[in-house]
Amino acid sequence: LEQSKLKELHALLGELQPFDFAEIYELLPAPSKPKFVLQLDSRQLAMMIQELDLELQMEVLHYIGFERSPDVLDRMDNDDLADLLKELSFKEMEAFLSSMQKEESEYVQHLMKYDPETAGGIMTNRFVWIRNHYTVREAVDKLKAFAAYAENLFYMYVLDENKVLVGVVSYRDLLLAHLDDRIDEIMYRRVISVHVDTDQEEVARTIERYNFISVPVVDSDKHLLGIVTVDDVIDVIVHEAAEDIQKLSATGAGKKGIDFQTSVISASARRLPWLLLLLLLGMLSGSMIARFEETLERVVALTFFMPMIAGMTGNTGTQSLAIVIRGLGTERLHKGALIRLISRDFGVGLVLGLICGILIGIIAYIWQGSVMLSFVVSLSLLLTLVIGTLAGTLIPLLLYKLKIDPAIASGPLITTLNDLFSLFVYFGLATLFINQL
Amino acid sequence: LEQSKLKELHALLGELQPFDFAEIYELLPAPSKPKFVLQLDSRQLAMMIQELDLELQMEVLHYIGFERSPDVLDRMDNDDLADLLKELSFKEMEAFLSSMQKEESEYVQHLMKYDPETAGGIMTNRFVWIRNHYTVREAVDKLKAFAAYAENLFYMYVLDENKVLVGVVSYRDLLLAHLDDRIDEIMYRRVISVHVDTDQEEVARTIERYNFISVPVVDSDKHLLGIVTVDDVIDVIVHEAAEDIQKLSATGAGKKGIDFQTSVISASARRLPWLLLLLLLGMLSGSMIARFEETLERVVALTFFMPMIAGMTGNTGTQSLAIVIRGLGTERLHKGALIRLISRDFGVGLVLGLICGILIGIIAYIWQGSVMLSFVVSLSLLLTLVIGTLAGTLIPLLLYKLKIDPAIASGPLITTLNDLFSLFVYFGLATLFINQL
Repeated sequence: LEQSKLKELHALLGELQPFDFAEIYELLPAPSKPKFVLQLDSRQLAMMIQELDLELQMEVLHYIGFERSPDVLDRMDNDDLADLLKELSFKEMEAFLSSMQKEESEYVQHLMKYDPETAGGIMTNRFVWIRNHYTVREAVDKLKAFAAYAENLFYMYVLDENKVLVGVVSYRDLLLAHLDDRIDEIMYRRVISVHVDTDQEEVARTIERYNFISVPVVDSDKHLLGIVTVDDVIDVIVHEAAEDIQKLSATGAGKKGIDFQTSVISASARRLPWLLLLLLLGMLSGSMIARFEETLERVVALTFFMPMIAGMTGNTGTQSLAIVIRGLGTERLHKGALIRLISRDFGVGLVLGLICGILIGIIAYIWQGSVMLSFVVSLSLLLTLVIGTLAGTLIPLLLYKLKIDPAIASGPLITTLNDLFSLFVYFGLATLFINQL
Repeated sequence: LEQSKLKELHALLGELQPFDFAEIYELLPAPSKPKFVLQLDSRQLAMMIQELDLELQMEVLHYIGFERSPDVLDRMDNDDLADLLKELSFKEMEAFLSSMQKEESEYVQHLMKYDPETAGGIMTNRFVWIRNHYTVREAVDKLKAFAAYAENLFYMYVLDENKVLVGVVSYRDLLLAHLDDRIDEIMYRRVISVHVDTDQEEVARTIERYNFISVPVVDSDKHLLGIVTVDDVIDVIVHEAAEDIQKLSATGAGKKGIDFQTSVISASARRLPWLLLLLLLGMLSGSMIARFEETLERVVALTFFMPMIAGMTGNTGTQSLAIVIRGLGTERLHKGALIRLISRDFGVGLVLGLICGILIGIIAYIWQGSVMLSFVVSLSLLLTLVIGTLAGTLIPLLLYKLKIDPAIASGPLITTLNDLFSLFVYFGLATLFINQL
């Protein structure tokens, strides 16, 4: 590149947003990536790294080189940095931490101790705090001193002499006040904060409900430990939705989902364990049916209704499961709500079972002309829809109450279990009435 | 209530957040609700209404009464107000609009014309704009004049003499600048804006990517029409996730989902249409199997593998569907990506089919001792897993490309279609090899 073009490039880079850097980096052909990295300053690199996936973060760190990395890492949000460092080998991590500023490095090590799915795991220390006896002028001076540091914020948090969080002041409040006003006269006192151990989904819910831009994180004595910002919360909400989808479809749990870029081998490997489990469960259904071989040989027409009975039970179970999974993400479940939900779904199962059961009875009679066969099919569908609807509600609730990873209650699993027992009910009833069929 | 207690109550109410008002209102017993409404001032009522569901909004409006309502509606965010007014009868709507301030009423009528799922449908005019030739002092003065109006904002948008958006200034920038600095010297010029017709999911993606608090909405000539704030975007993201879940579980599309509070009748009514459709499709499977009656009568053991074959095809289809639904929400689909995705999933189907097919062949041989039966079962599973995996990918992609509401490609529908053709493949192969079975 010529010198003049390079200058133009730098001017352009200066006006870009972090996401733009990340997108340019991802689109660049591999040989140009190290060159691009060299053109960015430490602040731009820090911003870019935060927008990249972990694998690409490692790649960029590699291009930056060990000498320059500490300067870049120093400028990253500490919550993102803690996540990145966790992925390094212990030796690399130690090396990076020891090369960072002492205060920063201590905070990051502190952050790494919290469960990553709690307020402590997603908070950052990039906030500006002031004392309650400050004037507006003193507050603005402190903001000026820490301007580069607290780049993306809109509030200042107010601490008393014991470092207890006692109020919050927005930049707007500061603009509207006189320079000589005291902070404790203009601050908002009923600060809503979250405890450092609060689950990240609950933190997201707090920000979502109150339309906050950030929420302070405190310990049990109300000492301010950090803040969680709305952009981190959006990530939590998106992640939570992806988890719900995984539960419904059995496409692998946790961070290792499957997207459009996943390779054939990885995608197959993540889908296979579920399918193998379901294969074995499917064979359980088969061996159960085999016990009714005699019934089947006498009335082959029973087979015609098998896919419908098994399918319908699976479908109603999936519907119930989706409602429960979604509900557990947004609603609180006290005992009264639980009982109401279960009896509601018993009612729903009954309504669906009666309507579908009567309908299929009529269809079966017209098609096969046997009153007893249509009675068996009709009664089976009624029973299996009631049980299937309830199974889709009860199984995930039970796992939730037992604090078992609810990813186990996946849609296909419930469908396959419903297959198994719906066919048992069907062939059981058929065998009971075999002499009339 | 006594006078002193009333005073205490008012002091308490003054410190609450909008969400708190809404929660108190929802928890109050019905007879106390009108009394509570009477204790709130117009600003508090406006905040509370915005946090309530539409049915409760109507109830509150009813309690407020026609005389006081305009004052309350005037204070609501215009995007929320437009949504509310759309639900009123034409006569009521006219009456409300004519009682509002002229400028506000015109803007709201304007908003109601935009598609509710676009930037225009979710934007608000509660922002403060300034001219580029202002000084910081003039900007702060304008902010002070409009303070109550632009309550929750953190930026001021800068317009030139043609009302074209030319820059943005944060309150933080204002605090850090000198009072005599000119706005066009300190403003950020590369403002990222969205067009008024942009889909709301794309708006959400913009805010998510750039970690914005709000994004300006412009027409084709870059005139500033409104802004979309991050709290509205969170609602869009949550809504989008709920839609994905509905697609995977066939629990009703659009706003009318099912939650823990939905009544037995409503929940049944929303689930029933899908189940009836699936019932008929299930009977298609049945009548298809009936054509293979002769084959079935000769080899009853074929029945034992039916649930496994149909179930596995449905399961792999659900997995593929979930990956596509989730991906369509977050990734762009150009032609190259499409071809790569489809060939990836063909590969995945082949890997899964080979592993599961060989496994089930061994199991079938050990169990039933027939080489030909185990060959038919094994080959069927291989074929149906390939086709089922691809069907789960291709059907939603096709609907998406044809711009058909993708809610149609629900999980249970794909499962049931996969049932149908997997059993056709299975019994077709069995009939072909019947003399060897």
